[in-house]
Amino acid sequence: MHQPTISGSSRIRRTPYSKRVEEAGVKSYSVYNHMLLPTVFDTLENDYHHLKTAVQVWDVSVERQIEIIGPDATKILQMVTPRDISKMKDDQCYYIPMVDKHGLMINDPVAVKLDKNRYWISIADSDVIYYFKGLAEGMGLNVNIFESDVNIISIQGPKSKILIERMFGKEISELKFFRHGKVFFNGKKMIVARSGWSHQMCFEVYVDGSMNGQDMWDKFFSLGNDLDVRAGCPNLIERIESGLLSYGNDVNQTNTPYEAGLGKFLSSGVSEGCLAYDILRTKTEPQRLIKPIEITGEPIKPITYSLQVLNSNGEVVGQITSAAWSPDFKVNVAIGMIDREYWNEKNSLFLNLTKNDKRQIIINDKFWS
Amino acid sequence: MHQPTISGSSRIRRTPYSKRVEEAGVKSYSVYNHMLLPTVFDTLENDYHHLKTAVQVWDVSVERQIEIIGPDATKILQMVTPRDISKMKDDQCYYIPMVDKHGLMINDPVAVKLDKNRYWISIADSDVIYYFKGLAEGMGLNVNIFESDVNIISIQGPKSKILIERMFGKEISELKFFRHGKVFFNGKKMIVARSGWSHQMCFEVYVDGSMNGQDMWDKFFSLGNDLDVRAGCPNLIERIESGLLSYGNDVNQTNTPYEAGLGKFLSSGVSEGCLAYDILRTKTEPQRLIKPIEITGEPIKPITYSLQVLNSNGEVVGQITSAAWSPDFKVNVAIGMIDREYWNEKNSLFLNLTKNDKRQIIINDKFWS
Repeated sequence: MHQPTISGSSRIRRTPYSKRVEEAGVKSYSVYNHMLLPTVFDTLENDYHHLKTAVQVWDVSVERQIEIIGPDATKILQMVTPRDISKMKDDQCYYIPMVDKHGLMINDPVAVKLDKNRYWISIADSDVIYYFKGLAEGMGLNVNIFESDVNIISIQGPKSKILIERMFGKEISELKFFRHGKVFFNGKKMIVARSGWSHQMCFEVYVDGSMNGQDMWDKFFSLGNDLDVRAGCPNLIERIESGLLSYGNDVNQTNTPYEAGLGKFLSSGVSEGCLAYDILRTKTEPQRLIKPIEITGEPIKPITYSLQVLNSNGEVVGQITSAAWSPDFKVNVAIGMIDREYWNEKNSLFLNLTKNDKRQIIINDKFWS
Repeated sequence: MHQPTISGSSRIRRTPYSKRVEEAGVKSYSVYNHMLLPTVFDTLENDYHHLKTAVQVWDVSVERQIEIIGPDATKILQMVTPRDISKMKDDQCYYIPMVDKHGLMINDPVAVKLDKNRYWISIADSDVIYYFKGLAEGMGLNVNIFESDVNIISIQGPKSKILIERMFGKEISELKFFRHGKVFFNGKKMIVARSGWSHQMCFEVYVDGSMNGQDMWDKFFSLGNDLDVRAGCPNLIERIESGLLSYGNDVNQTNTPYEAGLGKFLSSGVSEGCLAYDILRTKTEPQRLIKPIEITGEPIKPITYSLQVLNSNGEVVGQITSAAWSPDFKVNVAIGMIDREYWNEKNSLFLNLTKNDKRQIIINDKFWS
């Protein structure tokens, strides 16, 4: 079947960069936080090779910034995450698994502290702004919560450091991982962070104000002309290789942070201000866990829906939610949620790719090590 | 430019009918509540003509059902809507503008009462489940809130009554507008309502359980063979002609129900249990309002983004969010939000379709009367 096109709609917002993205020949879109997210420019594999060798400019405006401001800002932020907000440094990008009262994940944003009682949280694909609003309005908290007009450009790839240095100087290009600094652009103070949704060298520019978007985009291209800079986007293959979780794909609101493999962020304890404190501090041993997986055999087409993982008796013992052929690893790589008793099994897990194509799968912890 | 395709992803859920929808040749998809929504099968205009003359089967699984159950179910439902929940009849489909504490719209679902303390609300495109969860957890309400495995099929068009009678008998096909009845299918009790997202004769079958989906779909097609039954979907042109609002397109969380033209549902008063009681009962006069609009001149291509409405001085006095050429009305029809002082202007509003194509627009209340 011919792949259906995506329908335009005011409901699915364009970004300040959509015009440039389309001029660059975007072939495929996804929708994320009610907004367009480019997914392929050339081919999935060509985008992948270019990402790993050169530098790309990504439109990741879909990482919407929820601004939380007011005397109760820190309190409400602490209520929704088991991580200790008070340990967050002023220049730190703070990854906060977000949970409801039952300790189930409702998002996995990165928070930055703008001021004493003012935060942005850079959200994955769900309208968690409503959870904040519901809590705040139900409890009468003194806090204002809204989506800011911030549209992130991510600079990705081994040559991203050169491009960022040309744009913002060494102070920014030498930032440590998950730290941020301040820059001025079009007379406006903006945040640039050493972060991004790949395991290549990468930076995220929190472009403040839609009207500044195209200028920023164009300047990166004019400065990176000799670096073979191209428009790019999060790459399915690279992110599976790297074990970058996608909320809504690999993890959803049926999972605890422990199941999502985020126990390492809670090893120093669950913060008492978190609504799910009692649950998360006691139930620390997950009964299923996100795992790096190899699907044996011939190269597969990218898997875009959930596939059941079976044991040798044909019983369902997990799901695979993302998978693709890895040209560099030369195997099919996948991310899956596997029941506890099968974490150490090497040879007895299977899936039915199609009715007549049964594959053995192997948990391969080396992928993410 | 070639229209980009939509990327597959576990994050964007397929429905129990996606296979059938694709076999029927779906050309275009949108994403709605993290799920695929078909938007075109043949062409927008051919789909439109067929919808108005025959019968279509629509996959509107995207109208997800949020189930609210428990002793505080009625209380929490009343907190989020100004309509009086106690007036809802047992067999009624109850349209409830959903608002936050500030009286701003966060969804516009249809509620059905399943039992004394059990409701489904059939939501538009936003994760309002999080608002319910936030309120319930913040206030310690005794209620359970989750998304049910219900996937609505809508039967649409002038011959839908015949098809529904063949399927479920006269008791269902003779239902009054916005009333529902019970049927059995595959041994399971299900709700069928005289409702749907067009102004044609239409019904919605609340197909309970994904495993029953394809059977239901196929049975409608086998029973409707002689009626020229086809797979269809909400049609942009027909819904603009009919003035059916689309949350996220024409109305969003910056609007009050009055601005959305929903004041008629509140004419008997705002319910005291609503969190926005004080605001909505006093500020009843909107300063801007959803209006049916004619865009003069040559047929336009469908408008898929927000366009500014200008007065004769070039000042912005509104937005148009949905527009298309209407083959039956033989004019360009549109939905827009217009500032109060321009509601009666007939000749002095404009928009710039493109840099060189300025059009006069006319508020035309006849469209929706």
